[in-house]
Amino acid sequence: MKTVLILGTGLVGTSIGLALRQRGVTVLLADRDLGAVRLAREMGAGQEWRAGEGEQFDLAVIAVPPDHVATELRGLQQRDVARFYTDVASVKAKPIARAIQLGCDMGTYVASHPMAGREKAGPGAARADLFLGRPWAICPTSESDEEARKAVEELIELCGANAVEVAAEDHDRAVAIVSHAPHVAASAVAARLAEASDVTLGLAGQGVRDVTRIAGGDPGLWLGILSGNAAPVAEVLEAVSRDLAEAATALRALEEGDESAAPEVTQLLKRGVVGHGRIPGKHGGPAAAYGVVQVVIGDRPGQLARLFQVCDEVGVNVEDVRLEHAPGLPLGLAEVSVQPDAVTVLTEALHERGWQVP
Amino acid sequence: MKTVLILGTGLVGTSIGLALRQRGVTVLLADRDLGAVRLAREMGAGQEWRAGEGEQFDLAVIAVPPDHVATELRGLQQRDVARFYTDVASVKAKPIARAIQLGCDMGTYVASHPMAGREKAGPGAARADLFLGRPWAICPTSESDEEARKAVEELIELCGANAVEVAAEDHDRAVAIVSHAPHVAASAVAARLAEASDVTLGLAGQGVRDVTRIAGGDPGLWLGILSGNAAPVAEVLEAVSRDLAEAATALRALEEGDESAAPEVTQLLKRGVVGHGRIPGKHGGPAAAYGVVQVVIGDRPGQLARLFQVCDEVGVNVEDVRLEHAPGLPLGLAEVSVQPDAVTVLTEALHERGWQVP
Repeated sequence: MKTVLILGTGLVGTSIGLALRQRGVTVLLADRDLGAVRLAREMGAGQEWRAGEGEQFDLAVIAVPPDHVATELRGLQQRDVARFYTDVASVKAKPIARAIQLGCDMGTYVASHPMAGREKAGPGAARADLFLGRPWAICPTSESDEEARKAVEELIELCGANAVEVAAEDHDRAVAIVSHAPHVAASAVAARLAEASDVTLGLAGQGVRDVTRIAGGDPGLWLGILSGNAAPVAEVLEAVSRDLAEAATALRALEEGDESAAPEVTQLLKRGVVGHGRIPGKHGGPAAAYGVVQVVIGDRPGQLARLFQVCDEVGVNVEDVRLEHAPGLPLGLAEVSVQPDAVTVLTEALHERGWQVP
Repeated sequence: MKTVLILGTGLVGTSIGLALRQRGVTVLLADRDLGAVRLAREMGAGQEWRAGEGEQFDLAVIAVPPDHVATELRGLQQRDVARFYTDVASVKAKPIARAIQLGCDMGTYVASHPMAGREKAGPGAARADLFLGRPWAICPTSESDEEARKAVEELIELCGANAVEVAAEDHDRAVAIVSHAPHVAASAVAARLAEASDVTLGLAGQGVRDVTRIAGGDPGLWLGILSGNAAPVAEVLEAVSRDLAEAATALRALEEGDESAAPEVTQLLKRGVVGHGRIPGKHGGPAAAYGVVQVVIGDRPGQLARLFQVCDEVGVNVEDVRLEHAPGLPLGLAEVSVQPDAVTVLTEALHERGWQVP
């Protein structure tokens, strides 16, 4: 793959450009928003494309919102701009159905979706390593040419991601479960805080902060995603809503002294434990059982450097670190995750050097 | 306050013991589980108490599950064990009502609840700094003696926490919103993952991991908490369930081409943004707008030490750090939160020293 056209220089399109440029691919960029194209170019994602200019591209990547994918695809195919085509929208079934409806060539087009994103949007938030080691769904149909599919797989490999082949409908149901419905559920929990008293908010801690973190996302952007995957998301939301309504009914029965309602609550909590435990760890495999060393730190420059200096001295690799600040006080706790057999080594080394390891 | 009895040496009871011992208070410990008492003692939380032994305590802290608080209170008061009494259970209205029912002396007893916990339980997880800077709800009634209330406030101060006076019913409604109902909602989202295919889980990322983190908690422990606060939790769950059912209905209408349903979805997302934004930041005040510097790091010893060494050299205080590993690859990204005016300084310093700052 030598030349790629990227149509749409938002976060994902620009990040693909950056990744491909690092691998020596010639990248041309286009976007309705000329400012976005210019920023993407300045970041090193490729050169600006003037429609009609140059040779036929090896691949065109359509990086626009789901409801614009099919029309853009048709426009490019009519001008024979590239040998092969893909898109990277977060919803797959509807754009494919629309492309068939518009009479697009379904042999040279294979839809795909990188499972990577950020809370920030736009070319300025792009990163060459956005897709590194991430799953990237590829959704060929029975009409897809083998060569087109290979071209998309090469794109995925060049971006450092892992191709996961999945039918478009299965993809849409999966992202409804792992991304779209959780977003709405987080919003519904956070909506309670919008109405709550200051005293209530004053009692909020890390738990509710984590549950509602993704609810901070842009409502306009998310309306587009949710409506593009409406039926699968609605199905998951109905199941979550039903579970919560049943839990509420069981709790009201318990309140009335009906102890036979307890197992229903416990069952939901247990299913939650199982489901939570199935999420792969950050390294892609099953969640690794790291050991955690807790260290009291002062909230001032140099403390963390000294802490990690000790890890370095004793040859311990830090797998993760989490800072817990004490609200209102310049003191905190660092939780350093390391391989289980490194816990004792690190704990003793910190003790010897006078660190407070509770 | 010179002498304190702690009844119940789990996570919270033992942590109170550790905090009080650091301030020179004499602490005696009791628990039905002799192994738990021994472990708490070995951790330095106090000495074992033999019932009936010694002088009257200045304060007795009842650190047992909510449904045992009233009986333990009555038992201690009948033997005149302490001048004043408090409990630290996560639910307040029911234990108080039960104490009145059992004829406890409501003058010497003032209920309270520290807003601090950990995902780990038991005395082994205790920390002297567990309450540092955290809110600690105190729920006096009209019958509470002024002296009893002052004794509990002194306890809270000795533990480094901030007393927040709130009526028992208000407390229970608040924790239903910021803690108990979010836990059940996280469980219901996670329950979908229990039933999902491996392909679905393979597409899971950081978002759903955060939303479901607290769903990993112990179901038995949580059944006790939820049933002790059943009515307020049920009320919040009903509201969340209703919002999600309405969102599902709106999405199904959108699916049918009824665009008038869009604002309903957007409204819920917007309320979520507002609610999320009201959660206080980790330093207790409003969420601070830190600047974030992203740095590519290698997943090997020494990298973090060198990174924080640079922060130290240029006098930049690290407010928070988050590691994002690329699944399956030994490469990652550190997101370092600093004061906004330190972003440029740090970015340039890292650039100069050859760090990859995307």
